[in-house]
Amino acid sequence: MGEKYLISNALGTFVFDESFDVVETVQNKDISDYSSWLESEKMFINKYKDDKLFYIGNKETKLEGIRTSKDPKKLKALQEFFKKKFDELYKLNLRLTKLKIKASIKDDLLIIQTIRNIEELNKGANTLSKRLREWYELYLPELSKQVEEHEAFVRLILENNKQELLKEIKLSAKDSMGADLPEEDVKPIINLAQKIKALHKLKEEQETYLETKMKTYCPNLLAIAGANIGAQLLAHAGDLHRLAMMPGSTIQLLGAESALFRHIRTGARCPKYGVLINHPIVSKAKMSDKGRAARKLADKICIAVKVDLYKGEFIGNKLRKQVEDQMG
Amino acid sequence: MGEKYLISNALGTFVFDESFDVVETVQNKDISDYSSWLESEKMFINKYKDDKLFYIGNKETKLEGIRTSKDPKKLKALQEFFKKKFDELYKLNLRLTKLKIKASIKDDLLIIQTIRNIEELNKGANTLSKRLREWYELYLPELSKQVEEHEAFVRLILENNKQELLKEIKLSAKDSMGADLPEEDVKPIINLAQKIKALHKLKEEQETYLETKMKTYCPNLLAIAGANIGAQLLAHAGDLHRLAMMPGSTIQLLGAESALFRHIRTGARCPKYGVLINHPIVSKAKMSDKGRAARKLADKICIAVKVDLYKGEFIGNKLRKQVEDQMG
Repeated sequence: MGEKYLISNALGTFVFDESFDVVETVQNKDISDYSSWLESEKMFINKYKDDKLFYIGNKETKLEGIRTSKDPKKLKALQEFFKKKFDELYKLNLRLTKLKIKASIKDDLLIIQTIRNIEELNKGANTLSKRLREWYELYLPELSKQVEEHEAFVRLILENNKQELLKEIKLSAKDSMGADLPEEDVKPIINLAQKIKALHKLKEEQETYLETKMKTYCPNLLAIAGANIGAQLLAHAGDLHRLAMMPGSTIQLLGAESALFRHIRTGARCPKYGVLINHPIVSKAKMSDKGRAARKLADKICIAVKVDLYKGEFIGNKLRKQVEDQMG
Repeated sequence: MGEKYLISNALGTFVFDESFDVVETVQNKDISDYSSWLESEKMFINKYKDDKLFYIGNKETKLEGIRTSKDPKKLKALQEFFKKKFDELYKLNLRLTKLKIKASIKDDLLIIQTIRNIEELNKGANTLSKRLREWYELYLPELSKQVEEHEAFVRLILENNKQELLKEIKLSAKDSMGADLPEEDVKPIINLAQKIKALHKLKEEQETYLETKMKTYCPNLLAIAGANIGAQLLAHAGDLHRLAMMPGSTIQLLGAESALFRHIRTGARCPKYGVLINHPIVSKAKMSDKGRAARKLADKICIAVKVDLYKGEFIGNKLRKQVEDQMG
């Protein structure tokens, strides 16, 4: 039998004949898949053991039954061939990386986008609501003081005209300090109110979606912390895995980072709670108990997220009840 | 004839008989209407000159034909009467004040509300657009880099599904790093895009309204500065009257207040322009000419607003052309 040349590198294992035409190859699928490379090398060595099999390259360890050739001419001749092979592997690995990125997009990321969006919608709707009030006060200033809640204010001015609103707040038209604006000047105000209402509605929809997502992805976290606070904790941690790796004391202070670092830097008072301050158990607790409530709650959340991460049984309600009983 | 008592105060002028029943009164309509008060006093003095007319109160200047009585008992008896009269006048003046407030609501205020709203809509839509991009990048990351303009991005994802968009950016589905999200996870993203589009639309409507308002209220300012910058100048000044009273150098620096005060306080470089930087004439000028352009523009705006305030002829286009010619 003739001479054969074997080359084994990151791209795969290749066997050539004397004129450097490919006889057989095993290409690596993944640049990090070192074992398949070694295996195919061994396979070829077995297969072509009757040939004069030369190993081309700088391999330090001589494998059994192989002679090493370091002839630079032969290496040169293969350059083009390997350039092509390298391009193939590069593309393959790029696609694999893309697939990995694609696969890395889990429900955490969707939940985090949703809660961030809810916060922004809230802020945006508030800014626009303040503008709406200020603008509408030129038309009917007395209403704004009587209706403090933004959503109710928007609903009122969308559903009633000035006459009806005056009746609502028991005021005669001549007692109002508002200007009698013509239709075309009221329209932009009403348009604004409509868009604010649409933002409120979107916020509600996103909140429903958030809850649905969390119900399947992290039901225990949802049960003990609620959709908003649970999602905020996730957003602060980055993802469920990182949140599950955190000790309770860290969870307790998520969202209070600036206060914590101020404490470390200047010795100011240590914060007792971060996003948990808005949780009913903490907010309902007496001022002197809030810290304790946050700590106990954080401990149970710590358990809940670990159960969620490893897809354990649903114990969220039980955990929540335990904290509620403790804070009684 | 019997005794008559005359009382004249801020509420009006009153004549009483001996048993302190009202004989005749002239009430002041407006608390500041001092002349009518003096006049009615004189009228009564003439009318009742045949009676024994006593002047009750602390009046320093004795009027002709009047004897002053400072009898505290008589004053006491009138207390109730005047309490009622005072309430009447208070209500009357309250209504007058309300009418004045009502009348003070002019087009300036509407214009200022509109431009502030446009700014807020812009900011809100931008925040939400950034969120939309980040969120959509989980689904199809390659689109966001190709389409830089927010409005175009929103339009694209509303009008096309993922397949169409992939075709648009010449990418095969398997090359995309985006996750294959199910319908229910894409919906909240699309919902958000719809609301952003609605905000863009509202912004456009408010801009149209702003221009219509300015066309009738301050056409010269509109012509020389444009709707946006003109309204911003109005908002900075407070109203058209105050803007018209400002010298050109102040108008030139409106919107650069913090830089101006930093200059005064610390001797940092003096700002050369405020909101005018966004005006085409200034922004198109060479870097070294921008200050000069802003100064010349501000001078002409100064003229334009004065003409608007006193409802002069339309010379806005002429003024603008003059600056354009000067800046060549």
